[in-house]
Amino acid sequence: MSQLDHLKSRMAEVSDLKAAAALLSWDQQTCMPRAGAPARAEQIATLEKLAHGRFVTEEVGAWLEGAAAETRALAYESDDASLVRLTRRDYDKARRIPPALVEELARQTSLGMEVWVKARSQSDFSLFQGALQTLVDLQRKLADCLGYRERRYDALLDQYEPGMQSADLDRLFADLKRGLVPLVQEISRKLDSVQDEVLRQRFPIDKQTAFGLELAQEMGFDLGAGRQDESVHPFCTSFSNRDVRITTRFDERFLPSALFGTLHETGHALYEQGVSTALERTPLSGGTSLGIHESQSRMWENLVGRSRGFWKFAYPRLQRTFPQELAGCSLEDFYRAINRVEPSLIRVEADEVTYNLHIMLRYELEVQLVDDSLPVADLPEAWNGKMRDYLGITPPNDALGVLQDVHWSHGLFGYFPTYSLGNLISVQLYDRASREVPGIPADIERGEFSPLLGWLRERVHRHGRKFMPAELVRRVTGEELRAEPFVSYLKAKYGEIYN
Amino acid sequence: MSQLDHLKSRMAEVSDLKAAAALLSWDQQTCMPRAGAPARAEQIATLEKLAHGRFVTEEVGAWLEGAAAETRALAYESDDASLVRLTRRDYDKARRIPPALVEELARQTSLGMEVWVKARSQSDFSLFQGALQTLVDLQRKLADCLGYRERRYDALLDQYEPGMQSADLDRLFADLKRGLVPLVQEISRKLDSVQDEVLRQRFPIDKQTAFGLELAQEMGFDLGAGRQDESVHPFCTSFSNRDVRITTRFDERFLPSALFGTLHETGHALYEQGVSTALERTPLSGGTSLGIHESQSRMWENLVGRSRGFWKFAYPRLQRTFPQELAGCSLEDFYRAINRVEPSLIRVEADEVTYNLHIMLRYELEVQLVDDSLPVADLPEAWNGKMRDYLGITPPNDALGVLQDVHWSHGLFGYFPTYSLGNLISVQLYDRASREVPGIPADIERGEFSPLLGWLRERVHRHGRKFMPAELVRRVTGEELRAEPFVSYLKAKYGEIYN
Repeated sequence: MSQLDHLKSRMAEVSDLKAAAALLSWDQQTCMPRAGAPARAEQIATLEKLAHGRFVTEEVGAWLEGAAAETRALAYESDDASLVRLTRRDYDKARRIPPALVEELARQTSLGMEVWVKARSQSDFSLFQGALQTLVDLQRKLADCLGYRERRYDALLDQYEPGMQSADLDRLFADLKRGLVPLVQEISRKLDSVQDEVLRQRFPIDKQTAFGLELAQEMGFDLGAGRQDESVHPFCTSFSNRDVRITTRFDERFLPSALFGTLHETGHALYEQGVSTALERTPLSGGTSLGIHESQSRMWENLVGRSRGFWKFAYPRLQRTFPQELAGCSLEDFYRAINRVEPSLIRVEADEVTYNLHIMLRYELEVQLVDDSLPVADLPEAWNGKMRDYLGITPPNDALGVLQDVHWSHGLFGYFPTYSLGNLISVQLYDRASREVPGIPADIERGEFSPLLGWLRERVHRHGRKFMPAELVRRVTGEELRAEPFVSYLKAKYGEIYN
Repeated sequence: MSQLDHLKSRMAEVSDLKAAAALLSWDQQTCMPRAGAPARAEQIATLEKLAHGRFVTEEVGAWLEGAAAETRALAYESDDASLVRLTRRDYDKARRIPPALVEELARQTSLGMEVWVKARSQSDFSLFQGALQTLVDLQRKLADCLGYRERRYDALLDQYEPGMQSADLDRLFADLKRGLVPLVQEISRKLDSVQDEVLRQRFPIDKQTAFGLELAQEMGFDLGAGRQDESVHPFCTSFSNRDVRITTRFDERFLPSALFGTLHETGHALYEQGVSTALERTPLSGGTSLGIHESQSRMWENLVGRSRGFWKFAYPRLQRTFPQELAGCSLEDFYRAINRVEPSLIRVEADEVTYNLHIMLRYELEVQLVDDSLPVADLPEAWNGKMRDYLGITPPNDALGVLQDVHWSHGLFGYFPTYSLGNLISVQLYDRASREVPGIPADIERGEFSPLLGWLRERVHRHGRKFMPAELVRRVTGEELRAEPFVSYLKAKYGEIYN
């Protein structure tokens, strides 16, 4: 057995342990009886501890050295050279985290989610405050173990967006703000010119489910290798590229909630199903970063799913599904309704224009939490203050405010900015795809999604984690990650809708 | 930290790994998209391999020695002395199995089940033959590693019924046959005196589900710490005593299928939920043997669920659920219908009298498979031959014959006899309970199950694996495991029904 084979065999084991932990977490969010939570926390902690422990051994270090020598002559893009390169990066980071911290992080995030579910259902932040404090303290410890050059936050961000620094984010967000603020102001003067009452009728959930799943399948989601369930917070997870699962949250009284949620998670699922089978059970399987992942979900949700062309194909079908509800609504009115801009409380249901303001708010707050400049107890007030500043509205309660997102309860700090990165990247990728395959917009109007999916599979999906996110953007688009294309897209689309 | 604490900490980890593997298997049978099977097989194999590998180390051996010394003064029944005693037995057995065999067993059984599902749906044994051959070969290897005194089969049986030998089984089964054969002959002359057409109408599945779950809850199944799902083969599994799951198979055209299946699995679930919380994450959690487990499921399914007293309470409610279907059927006719004796094809739906003939058939065949005296290729013919001999009927196809049970595809050899043991033990335990708490039968007529459940919790459930099965029967009933009480029960009950 070569050193590389030894390395692969161990990494397959680590990959299996992580897949098992992911299934335990999926089950916790979709099926598990609530009383099962304490035992589940221990089980996930054990799996995470073993996945970490089996990875950071001295022998893996030796195999990595040996495998680097064995693969020296291979092309940079080859599976094996990429495996060694990426695993080396992961290894150097993982070695910095003490096993006891890995176990404690896993346990507290599994427990934290249960506390959050309860606090959210009672709309009472104080129930969650202690658990959140524990999680923030652990994240600080984690960041200090991982190390950073400028800000402690960078160590956490790097987990989700490898290679990205908060200084880069500050620059991108400044560009974004410069473009967004005048746009939001202009639209704010004409808010009433677009109405969406038609979306706020009673839409039976079984029909919503069937319609959403049908679209997901036409986009390319293979239900023979995936499924959909309900959960409090929608997400996508996978245990191999042949077992990819999405979840959805349904609102009988607001059609877009589940509809665009399904298209969004389908975007994630298409990425996971598209990763090359040759990369299965290696550290190269899965998406390369959350930003790139989100570029896929936002592309299918927004650039495709909220485009006029898409609904030329899909609206007649939606009208057949809800004939009474949509009888008096033209395609044009429907298109305008699903693109209505309105400063609102809930991030996941925000329009494309104001969405990134929700992200900036969270980014600024979590930087402060991690840098210790904002006490956890003051978080609800700080949240509500920023909601007033950025969106001009005050959350009426914690459930609609600071408790709306699952992320912090999951110990995910440094995660939110990747949503905005995804928005920016989605436009850069889509622009490139449409230049290389000019028929894509017309195909979408006919419900023909395979040209776009095929392009994404070839350029993005199949590579898994082979390339770093910024590197991938550069390879595919020939340019750096930047805010301008996204701002131009918004200006063109919403300039037309709001004149 | 004491040696005992070291031991407990490691066993907690092993217990978490096994719970994770059990969840992966539950998911495979209830939720997983079929294409996920190959990756799932690897994941389960990795978990089993690690659970085994983390257990059989030299340091666990040293901790066991140390813990034995530390607990020497403790009472035999104490948690800690029992932990050391049982773990020692498990350890000595586990050390005999090479890690590669553990991994291969896990992988092939996970794959085997997928092949069986396909073969069964196409009713074609030849599709399953190769996988079964692989599984039988592995079981032989396993038995040879585990060791045995008389027959290779004994090594496999001991996994499910610790301490039991096939010579004991042969004796019990001979007694059973001696009692059963004349009974079956007598009943056979009067088969038509009991009819069950009333059970073969259309019973909508949602109503069946609700009714079954309601009964399960009244019997004591805590749905805040459990759930019910559908699967091809009904089963019960648990990931802690606060997360216990049953599955059911529904047949719209035959009421008893899901109804008694639910009561049966509820019996298993009550056992799992009743194990003392102090034993969680130790090798003492869970049931002590499959025979004892089955005594619980068969008690709730048959001794309670098919008794006249039970339906005095439950039948009016069933009539309200299915008013049209049951309008013309008296309680007495219903009681007779659900206890109709008829030699039939499917074990899980067999009546109490003929059920054990199905088990003897499987026992005899698997002894031959393991002893290599029956080639796998000849199994369908041997199956059909014995069906003719014992039950006088010939399966029309493989799905209704040799492919009906999931067990062999799961690598479960030595498992079937525990079903009959469960039948025998259920009567011994129920007789004892009714002697110690004479009000139990009258309580059941009022839908009051807590006296029986309380007795079982105290005498059986809470102990988990503390006592060996034969030891437990002796402690609780004061007698050895034997066939006579079961035969007497059948004679009394069916003597009355069939005059």
